[in-house]
Amino acid sequence: MKKNVLIIGAGGVAQVVAHKCAQHNDVLGDIHIASRTAAKCQAIIDTIRAKQNLKNVDGVLAGHALDATNVDATVALIKETGCEIVLNVGSPFINMPVMSACIATGAAYLDTAIHEEQDKICETPPWYANYEWKRREECEKAGVTAILGAGFDPGVVNAYAKLAVEDYFDEIESIDIIDINAGSHGKYFATNFDPEINFREFTGTVYSWQNSKWQSNTMFEVKKVWDMPVVGESQTFMTGHDEVHSLSQNLNVPNVRFWMGFGDHYVNVFTVLKNIGLLSEQPVFTAEGQEVIPLKVVKACLPDPSSLAPDYTGKTCIGDLVKGKKDGKDTEVLIYNVADHKDAFEEVGSQGISYTAGVPPVAAALLIASGEWDVKKMANIEDLPAKPFLHLLNQMGLPTRIKDANGDRDLNFAN
Amino acid sequence: MKKNVLIIGAGGVAQVVAHKCAQHNDVLGDIHIASRTAAKCQAIIDTIRAKQNLKNVDGVLAGHALDATNVDATVALIKETGCEIVLNVGSPFINMPVMSACIATGAAYLDTAIHEEQDKICETPPWYANYEWKRREECEKAGVTAILGAGFDPGVVNAYAKLAVEDYFDEIESIDIIDINAGSHGKYFATNFDPEINFREFTGTVYSWQNSKWQSNTMFEVKKVWDMPVVGESQTFMTGHDEVHSLSQNLNVPNVRFWMGFGDHYVNVFTVLKNIGLLSEQPVFTAEGQEVIPLKVVKACLPDPSSLAPDYTGKTCIGDLVKGKKDGKDTEVLIYNVADHKDAFEEVGSQGISYTAGVPPVAAALLIASGEWDVKKMANIEDLPAKPFLHLLNQMGLPTRIKDANGDRDLNFAN
Repeated sequence: MKKNVLIIGAGGVAQVVAHKCAQHNDVLGDIHIASRTAAKCQAIIDTIRAKQNLKNVDGVLAGHALDATNVDATVALIKETGCEIVLNVGSPFINMPVMSACIATGAAYLDTAIHEEQDKICETPPWYANYEWKRREECEKAGVTAILGAGFDPGVVNAYAKLAVEDYFDEIESIDIIDINAGSHGKYFATNFDPEINFREFTGTVYSWQNSKWQSNTMFEVKKVWDMPVVGESQTFMTGHDEVHSLSQNLNVPNVRFWMGFGDHYVNVFTVLKNIGLLSEQPVFTAEGQEVIPLKVVKACLPDPSSLAPDYTGKTCIGDLVKGKKDGKDTEVLIYNVADHKDAFEEVGSQGISYTAGVPPVAAALLIASGEWDVKKMANIEDLPAKPFLHLLNQMGLPTRIKDANGDRDLNFAN
Repeated sequence: MKKNVLIIGAGGVAQVVAHKCAQHNDVLGDIHIASRTAAKCQAIIDTIRAKQNLKNVDGVLAGHALDATNVDATVALIKETGCEIVLNVGSPFINMPVMSACIATGAAYLDTAIHEEQDKICETPPWYANYEWKRREECEKAGVTAILGAGFDPGVVNAYAKLAVEDYFDEIESIDIIDINAGSHGKYFATNFDPEINFREFTGTVYSWQNSKWQSNTMFEVKKVWDMPVVGESQTFMTGHDEVHSLSQNLNVPNVRFWMGFGDHYVNVFTVLKNIGLLSEQPVFTAEGQEVIPLKVVKACLPDPSSLAPDYTGKTCIGDLVKGKKDGKDTEVLIYNVADHKDAFEEVGSQGISYTAGVPPVAAALLIASGEWDVKKMANIEDLPAKPFLHLLNQMGLPTRIKDANGDRDLNFAN
């Protein structure tokens, strides 16, 4: 049983995490939010109070200024606040230092994306082996629970894959993870996450796991149209993504691919920016001698993803299409969720992409608090039992649906 | 009779200017090149010597480091070198300080584009009235010859308009200036001039002179396909350009428009960059707090225009389509030049756009040196006799052609 939560980060996902933690502060205890800019934490706290999302209204809800690249400062804040669970939803550049602070204090660690170094894009596969998995022994020795990639994708889609293994298949041939945002924000161009992180996802090699080995492609090279529930026919491209790098290693499945939906307009804007060199993470010098990282300037010009929320309409559909054999017969199951941008905004003041990414780590934190997922070692989501997680998400706003030969239905935990 | 030339600037156009001055140093005397970066001046000097373009091989050819925004420094250099003609082909941000240095020393002043302030784009029409024309009296009082806009466009196209007035029409209804670059540089995207200056031309209001008043449009709003000699059918857009702002005021013509050729790819890249805000001359702040001007970062990412020269192929066609009445009859005359990128590179090591912009100011300097254009006051090109200028350009690599009811032929100065 662990309690008191330190949320690191104050962006769109952190806002959802904070609201959802507040809704469960009877279980989670004190809620602390830390970010480089204290004012951003306070802004989130204000929206929680405005929406009356703090279940236990007398509970602690506080913001802190923190440079999370400074391990000592994070250790001090964890000790000072008595937090036993750290929800890291800041930039992926801080994952390793925050993990160090957790190992030093014994606090449980949760994140939603792989660690990245500022000056490196798309390292060798499997990505988790470059930083996270090197610290497995260290976590186990310290008895620290460290749950990696606990957002939606990676995160919930890993649990969908695990559920397929547990309940629907004897043998799996392929897992295709499909992520469609059929929403509309009304801007000329915007990214749904931090533009810097969003673009970094797409500027490297597209690694997929096919026929039990790594295959390399370039972004926007492999296109496929999927007919998905609710959102309909959707153009996607094979994309490099965290969960391919763990599912391929942790489940005995020969094909794991990730498909992200992109409209022609996104592809065009991305292609122009990339070809000119404006998505580069490497510095350039202006004629006046100023050293600048182009990608950070593009980020500065684009809308703040959290500013999209009030006008965002439409739905997301994210799921795993799993193919394989059950009882000797070819079987195909789609396990998925549909979320609504407007509903998300009404509940927690965020758009749907932040919502789908921010609710799952809180469900995971609740499972650490209850002990069910407090495994005292490092784990990816597929290393953990899927059903308690999906059951909680059903109750917390991200219900799972199943579509197969038996129809299209809610995943039911009534039994 | 004036002599000794100070060239300010060391970009692609300055290289052409320097080569052409060197070819005529028997008339022009000493050739000095000044720029913020002395090494750039030396690089130009090296190419002049390599191509043996210095006519009088014992003539002075020297480079200097100069911050041309510093009037005192420019005055000192003019005095030290004994230059009586200053060819300003640096950035348009330095026009006014360089003009001040000329007025202080009595040196003749020449430029190829209107003055601009860093933080202002597209001021009110007529553009020349914002800075240059305010100093007419000052120039006349000091007896300083200041010739404005002496490149190709503005510059040669103004002389074409003047020639039309002098020789081909009793009354002119419209002048359409058409600028087509049908060349290919083989890069994903590049501008032919300094990207910062190039984009600044297209981010403001498109002013045209129609029915004897200013009309406002947006960039890429008004499209027209012209069938031009040699380059054929070409897609153009109505564009704001310097010469519209002087011809409209100096010639009694009710319609003066400028049309720049743009392919769909240019329009797409420009539209993406502009809509995202990356062409802005106003600073933004990165998440890390660094103050940056997006346009300067785009410039840093794009190819240096002078680097395009070796692989540039194809031709440019720039001219004035003039319509009006002669001897009571409707008359239409196209006065134009065709230049070749490869020929330009072979002669002076530059691409055709730099060549067409860099040869005319040297022709103008020769006319100042000879006294023909040494008018001791400020003048736009159309204020001066066109024929001596066009005659010189015929001999210097930019021959004028005429296309009308009598055929398509060289403009002949044999008589």
